[in-house]
Amino acid sequence: MQQLDIQTQDELLRVAHLLADAARPETLKYFRQANLSTDNKDASGYDPVTVADKAAEKVMRAILARERPDDGILGEEFGTTSGTSGLTWVLDPIDGTRGYVSGTPTWGILISVADQSGPLMGLIDQPYINERFVGGFGRAFMTGPLGEKPLVTRTAMPIGEARLLTTFPEVGSLTEGQAFHKVAEQVQLTRYGMDCYGYALLASGQVDLVIEAGLKPYDIHAPIAVIKAAGGIVSNWQGGAAHHGGRIVAAANAEIHAAALAILQDSIND
Amino acid sequence: MQQLDIQTQDELLRVAHLLADAARPETLKYFRQANLSTDNKDASGYDPVTVADKAAEKVMRAILARERPDDGILGEEFGTTSGTSGLTWVLDPIDGTRGYVSGTPTWGILISVADQSGPLMGLIDQPYINERFVGGFGRAFMTGPLGEKPLVTRTAMPIGEARLLTTFPEVGSLTEGQAFHKVAEQVQLTRYGMDCYGYALLASGQVDLVIEAGLKPYDIHAPIAVIKAAGGIVSNWQGGAAHHGGRIVAAANAEIHAAALAILQDSIND
Repeated sequence: MQQLDIQTQDELLRVAHLLADAARPETLKYFRQANLSTDNKDASGYDPVTVADKAAEKVMRAILARERPDDGILGEEFGTTSGTSGLTWVLDPIDGTRGYVSGTPTWGILISVADQSGPLMGLIDQPYINERFVGGFGRAFMTGPLGEKPLVTRTAMPIGEARLLTTFPEVGSLTEGQAFHKVAEQVQLTRYGMDCYGYALLASGQVDLVIEAGLKPYDIHAPIAVIKAAGGIVSNWQGGAAHHGGRIVAAANAEIHAAALAILQDSIND
Repeated sequence: MQQLDIQTQDELLRVAHLLADAARPETLKYFRQANLSTDNKDASGYDPVTVADKAAEKVMRAILARERPDDGILGEEFGTTSGTSGLTWVLDPIDGTRGYVSGTPTWGILISVADQSGPLMGLIDQPYINERFVGGFGRAFMTGPLGEKPLVTRTAMPIGEARLLTTFPEVGSLTEGQAFHKVAEQVQLTRYGMDCYGYALLASGQVDLVIEAGLKPYDIHAPIAVIKAAGGIVSNWQGGAAHHGGRIVAAANAEIHAAALAILQDSIND
């Protein structure tokens, strides 16, 4: 991992907030526009989600070109821009597009900065609720309707008292779905439909586990940074590095992580 | 249905907003308190959800005793108070308690006023997002982070393009779950985890169908009023009155309602 001085860390945090502030209005422009996506979809292939996605990534890239010209960029919409600093900004302008088109406030803007070892700092922004979850470089806090609060994950408890989140009940492939549901059978409460907001709730100490499959690197970079800073653990289902995407288990603490991992590994090896 | 003059309608709307304004801080007092429910649950049976629920219903009942002493009350926490006016306030101080304890902003305060024919006016309030969805007495609007907007349900489209919401993938009994999933197989997109917020999204023109089972009367009274005012239809799975609770299908328009009902009736009669 790169050793960054305090000035550089502060600078990267400042730019991350700049990016989120600029992306917000682009994502909100099309959110909850009644009948919009349907009215336009068939006529000309015009898709407001893609329009919002691209516009949000474009404004972020313009800021990075000005403020951080030597850093690389990996974005969902416009791919990879190489850099020379060893740092890469990983951007997902609208994570959770199916939530976005349904009007649910579970989608988010994901922004993070990584070196070759993985994400160093990240933020999850929910523009409609006006919430921002930030982690890394010694920070772990959120701002939202009730003000600013530190992010601290839940303390360890038996898996039978844990709360588990994911997005779709099928999770991924048939095998992945079965593995997930073996964990779901053990916990107290399983809730669906959360998109990237689930990782924010884990970092906020509201739930114990988020388990998903089929993620892209830009889906999970920012959540990793935020959850790690709040005291949690994110890995793949084999316990290895999570920032390449794929099958992800995010946990509030080492104990619940180990408990979930044991079930997932068993199920996938079956 | 009772014929109420404009003055009475305005008065009832005024009181409904008073109730929601008073219930909000009671529900927010315990929302997102990290580790709170777990820390306290085992020690003494103290349950912050129940505390918030009861406190919110209590303040609403105090307002009704002062402002509308002749109306009846049906509340989730304190049951039935009979009245003499022929009007009954139906209150669910926190609908979606499992969402509430998980930190998801999908729970809501449900307030409605009904006569013997069913709900006349209602509101769905989401305190954390600062959103309120109001329907009845000629009103159909929402207020929220982006200001005030009219509530208008989506126009008719083939079921293959429809968006469907519910809360839990199992929905209810095995038979009820199977019936739900026959509808889910037909639609474009099914999303879970929405609690009463799903009905607000239907009224807002974001989705086409909400299908649930096992509801209580106080879970569905306010959604019926809001959705009806926005142009939608709410019935049970046989097409009958929905305000007694049970198996509910809420639809954006008559066409999608008929399409969903046909599938549900077939499945339940099998």
